[in-house]
Amino acid sequence: MSRSKPDVSALFDLARDGNRPALARLLSLIERGSDGARQVGALAYPLAGHGYTVGITGAPGAGKSTLTSALVGTMRAAELRLGVLAIDPSSPFTGGAILGDRVRMQEHALDDQVFIRSMATRGHLGGLALAAPEAVRLLEATGRDWVIIETVGVGQVEVEIAGKSDTTVVVVNPGWGDAVQANKAGLMEIADVFVINKSDRAGADDTRRDLEYMLDLSGHTGGEMAWRPPIVSTVATSVEGLDALWVAIQDHRAHLERTDELEPRRRGRTDDELSRIMLAQLTERVRSLRSSEDYEALRTLVDQRQIDPWEAAARLVGQ
Amino acid sequence: MSRSKPDVSALFDLARDGNRPALARLLSLIERGSDGARQVGALAYPLAGHGYTVGITGAPGAGKSTLTSALVGTMRAAELRLGVLAIDPSSPFTGGAILGDRVRMQEHALDDQVFIRSMATRGHLGGLALAAPEAVRLLEATGRDWVIIETVGVGQVEVEIAGKSDTTVVVVNPGWGDAVQANKAGLMEIADVFVINKSDRAGADDTRRDLEYMLDLSGHTGGEMAWRPPIVSTVATSVEGLDALWVAIQDHRAHLERTDELEPRRRGRTDDELSRIMLAQLTERVRSLRSSEDYEALRTLVDQRQIDPWEAAARLVGQ
Repeated sequence: MSRSKPDVSALFDLARDGNRPALARLLSLIERGSDGARQVGALAYPLAGHGYTVGITGAPGAGKSTLTSALVGTMRAAELRLGVLAIDPSSPFTGGAILGDRVRMQEHALDDQVFIRSMATRGHLGGLALAAPEAVRLLEATGRDWVIIETVGVGQVEVEIAGKSDTTVVVVNPGWGDAVQANKAGLMEIADVFVINKSDRAGADDTRRDLEYMLDLSGHTGGEMAWRPPIVSTVATSVEGLDALWVAIQDHRAHLERTDELEPRRRGRTDDELSRIMLAQLTERVRSLRSSEDYEALRTLVDQRQIDPWEAAARLVGQ
Repeated sequence: MSRSKPDVSALFDLARDGNRPALARLLSLIERGSDGARQVGALAYPLAGHGYTVGITGAPGAGKSTLTSALVGTMRAAELRLGVLAIDPSSPFTGGAILGDRVRMQEHALDDQVFIRSMATRGHLGGLALAAPEAVRLLEATGRDWVIIETVGVGQVEVEIAGKSDTTVVVVNPGWGDAVQANKAGLMEIADVFVINKSDRAGADDTRRDLEYMLDLSGHTGGEMAWRPPIVSTVATSVEGLDALWVAIQDHRAHLERTDELEPRRRGRTDDELSRIMLAQLTERVRSLRSSEDYEALRTLVDQRQIDPWEAAARLVGQ
């Protein structure tokens, strides 16, 4: 791949015309988070916003990837154009691979109405939490009406990324109720739909009962206007229960639209994103302030005990 | 306690003359982290810096509090003036209690050359990581030559606070080598001295062997100029091994001074503190920016998709 400066605007036009390598290169720019990413973001933003995002998360080994692939199949049968971002913070480098290591998803490799991409952070300021929404907007701006964001529900950031979708699907397995799982509480909180995947295994009924009980405890009474996360049983490897999952996702979307909850949700996300970006930019400023001449001068005054660190910091950040 | 605005300067003079209630009130101001804290910090800073800090950390139940109390006894026998900060992030409110809940330390309650204080955060901007060094400086400025900082080695912040002492003592118990312990690697990294407390229990020899092995693995070969953390066995409840611990701490101090490592260590800490303060001040600015009129105006432009969030954030933070 050439390392010469890409013509972002030309790549963007190509991507809008359906050129997949161009789209892949733009996503790489977002991963790297350099000036190129800013350009991509500025081009994509005015054309984005119409898409609907579905987050899929859960513990490692829950079968998220297989489930996502099966869901893509169901959605393609409905003739939807969609994108899939498989967020993979553990991978330091996914490269520009369109499928990454998501072998399960290769069945969709020849379908040009589906764009699947593994995504890691390669230096993006603010990390994946800020790179992911930019990637979603790029996928929307280049013609996708649905974007699935698959993350491992382990770390706080991954849970947050999935939880900032319009509809968040939390995938568990039989036995989940007993196991000590990282972020169980965090996952309970963000779920709009629960999936018990591998539900042909022993313990599926217990897991369903546990989930119902936890939903009762957390005050999900259901009722006319309130949403109680439905629990869908699936066996993703044999596509069992996938239609029911797709119905549950559409039901949740209809609920958000009927109750006018979708826009406030999205506005809240924009507020969060703005705060994160400001903080990332200010953190970057702290980094550059530390290598400034002013820093050395004030540092010396601190060492000589003429001013205290708070005064020095206030002068540096200009307060 | 009166809620009228305290005369910080008068309190500071009283504290320097040995008035303990005045010192306690100044520490409360630091905990609260309001403008009063800034005043205390500015008064203390020019008079601080001569003291030596010893961090004591380890898993809950390791016997840190008993060990600290015993160490205080040993140091008092050497006629040192000292302060103890027992950092307690789990307590939302320690109040102005001089001893807090550290009943073990009450034996020193009548010794006016020892000042012991539990400390929690009550809103300090930047939390305990920034309140702790301010409290240390106040204790130094009011006449203490040694400050012991005791923290539970559980969370990242607590380990960091203890690890930013001149000498850091990590307390473990027999059996530590086998147990899955939070932050084990983090504790290994910051230890200048290891204590195997409750060493009269079964498994103490195994624990010592494990620690030696881990030190070998991490390249602590010892040698002329390099420091290899010594491992001291104690039974704090019967003050067994306390003299050896005190010798180990003094040895480490002598090592740092002989190898000119103390000043660079402290300079590094000042750099870290300055960065943290700047980030805290800038985070505060993000918070206030979010309630500004500019924010609403730019927010509207983002909603209308006239500018993207990065552009809006850059305009808000003035980049």
